[in-house]
Amino acid sequence: MTTAERKRIEPLTRTKLPTAVWSTAVPIRFRHCDPAGIVFTPRYFDILNEAVEQFFGAALGLDYYLLISERKIGLGYAQASCEFLKPSRMGEVLDVAVLVERIGGSSYTLVLPVFKDGVEVVRGRLVTVTTMLEAFTSRPIPDDIRAGLEGYRDRCGEAIA
Amino acid sequence: MTTAERKRIEPLTRTKLPTAVWSTAVPIRFRHCDPAGIVFTPRYFDILNEAVEQFFGAALGLDYYLLISERKIGLGYAQASCEFLKPSRMGEVLDVAVLVERIGGSSYTLVLPVFKDGVEVVRGRLVTVTTMLEAFTSRPIPDDIRAGLEGYRDRCGEAIA
Amino acid sequence: MTTAERKRIEPLTRTKLPTAVWSTAVPIRFRHCDPAGIVFTPRYFDILNEAVEQFFGAALGLDYYLLISERKIGLGYAQASCEFLKPSRMGEVLDVAVLVERIGGSSYTLVLPVFKDGVEVVRGRLVTVTTMLEAFTSRPIPDDIRAGLEGYRDRCGEAIA
Amino acid sequence: MTTAERKRIEPLTRTKLPTAVWSTAVPIRFRHCDPAGIVFTPRYFDILNEAVEQFFGAALGLDYYLLISERKIGLGYAQASCEFLKPSRMGEVLDVAVLVERIGGSSYTLVLPVFKDGVEVVRGRLVTVTTMLEAFTSRPIPDDIRAGLEGYRDRCGEAIA
Repeated sequence: MTTAERKRIEPLTRTKLPTAVWSTAVPIRFRHCDPAGIVFTPRYFDILNEAVEQFFGAALGLDYYLLISERKIGLGYAQASCEFLKPSRMGEVLDVAVLVERIGGSSYTLVLPVFKDGVEVVRGRLVTVTTMLEAFTSRPIPDDIRAGLEGYRDRCGEAIA
Repeated sequence: MTTAERKRIEPLTRTKLPTAVWSTAVPIRFRHCDPAGIVFTPRYFDILNEAVEQFFGAALGLDYYLLISERKIGLGYAQASCEFLKPSRMGEVLDVAVLVERIGGSSYTLVLPVFKDGVEVVRGRLVTVTTMLEAFTSRPIPDDIRAGLEGYRDRCGEAIA
Repeated sequence: MTTAERKRIEPLTRTKLPTAVWSTAVPIRFRHCDPAGIVFTPRYFDILNEAVEQFFGAALGLDYYLLISERKIGLGYAQASCEFLKPSRMGEVLDVAVLVERIGGSSYTLVLPVFKDGVEVVRGRLVTVTTMLEAFTSRPIPDDIRAGLEGYRDRCGEAIA
Repeated sequence: MTTAERKRIEPLTRTKLPTAVWSTAVPIRFRHCDPAGIVFTPRYFDILNEAVEQFFGAALGLDYYLLISERKIGLGYAQASCEFLKPSRMGEVLDVAVLVERIGGSSYTLVLPVFKDGVEVVRGRLVTVTTMLEAFTSRPIPDDIRAGLEGYRDRCGEAIA
């Protein structure tokens, strides 16, 4: 990054996303907010992670919790980032969508646009590495996760140019 | 990003940072950790924000809390990101350093390398926009913050190539 | 409390509560859980507070957030406590009910039994003092909150002997 | 509890506690605070738990984290409660003390008075049950924890009448 001011992303419109895109409503609670009255940055990552947990069940048909507790598969992040376009306040309801950007050998990237009144206010990006828990070494993406992600990506098409 | 696997950053060594670089020790507590026994991703952003709060007082001579509560200056993020190189467990002690990467007109970028046993395990990057609270509109970086950041950056030199 | 072992409460059964009792489903997420794989104690208080926020809207017809942000009414706690009867794990779904135990002049007490599979696993108790925000001095319970709590209590009857 | 207003506890004075009482300074951070600008209730329980973690190391000579991760001893709560006497704001520094109230067969009770400027503003009480992790069944307090708690209690004397 240079000394030039950072270039902002163009906010997406919810209705322009493919209909196959899964999303979940997230009401902003008191606990999300800081003394400035808006959602505190780290809480957005709580919100994103929670959306991914639901996404696994609702869109991929996989129980996120059993993957970890029973199959000892780690779904940790190699990278997590957010762009913040507009602040949100308690009582508002956000809509968190999940898009599959990339499926690699032992990692995949999800993009999570967050909408308020249909306009994108936050964009998250999570690069997940599949690992063997306890050992904390990376492993190939398990077949059922790969099939789920590929199927979902195919259903959604090219969501973000 | 293409379908190629993501390129990882090269971990920094703490002792190679300029001596003027400020850092703070952060013991990993029970509350930071998840069922995999390691620090939960969103908690790293809590840790980074807390380091910035201390950095303002200790390195810039400015009270972060008065900026917000008295002067109604918002120090919200336009972008927040982390690269995770190695997991951390409760009982370990991290060392969070702060570097100034960019100072713009109404925003600045901090890079926060996090070390364990002297080797970088996490790298955070926070793009802060200075705003007027209540209005939530951006404003030029206040003079004392700018002077503080510039002085600190000068003392630290070019920390990351 | 003496040196005798603490006496445990008798767990309630969800179906034995009056039908007018309001409750909300709370799926346990990754972020709630600690390295022991169970809900971390402080997160239960997040869960209770969130249930109260919803209770205000759903059962009392009052917007919790407007009370605070617009009317500057504080709903802080003078006392908060929980009895923990059984641990809960991620992926499980709790059912958090709200009962009105006491309505005083400037404070009221809510009891929140939390059920798993219909049997009480946690019991929370929150003593709320109504205050004027900014001044942080107590004030009489606002009329609409009082009317809402009294109406709800009447509908529910004597829920806990 | 009757319909009478709740009786408040009498705030302790820090200097009147026995000199052997251990305590730790806790600066209030942005992340602790809510839209009312004060510490959010559930965060106090995070603060109490963190104080207990430090207390184990500093006052009992036991590594809290190894107890859990290596020896698989659970230190979960059967009961957790707080009385809130005064709100606290970001930038303030609290002093969290630990007192041993009771040592039973498989549980013990800690009282944690929290001071601001030497006067008690919060009083926490944590009833801990020692368990075998994985099984989540209670077990006798391990000998070294019992000896540590007894020694500490003896050094402190009768701290709270």
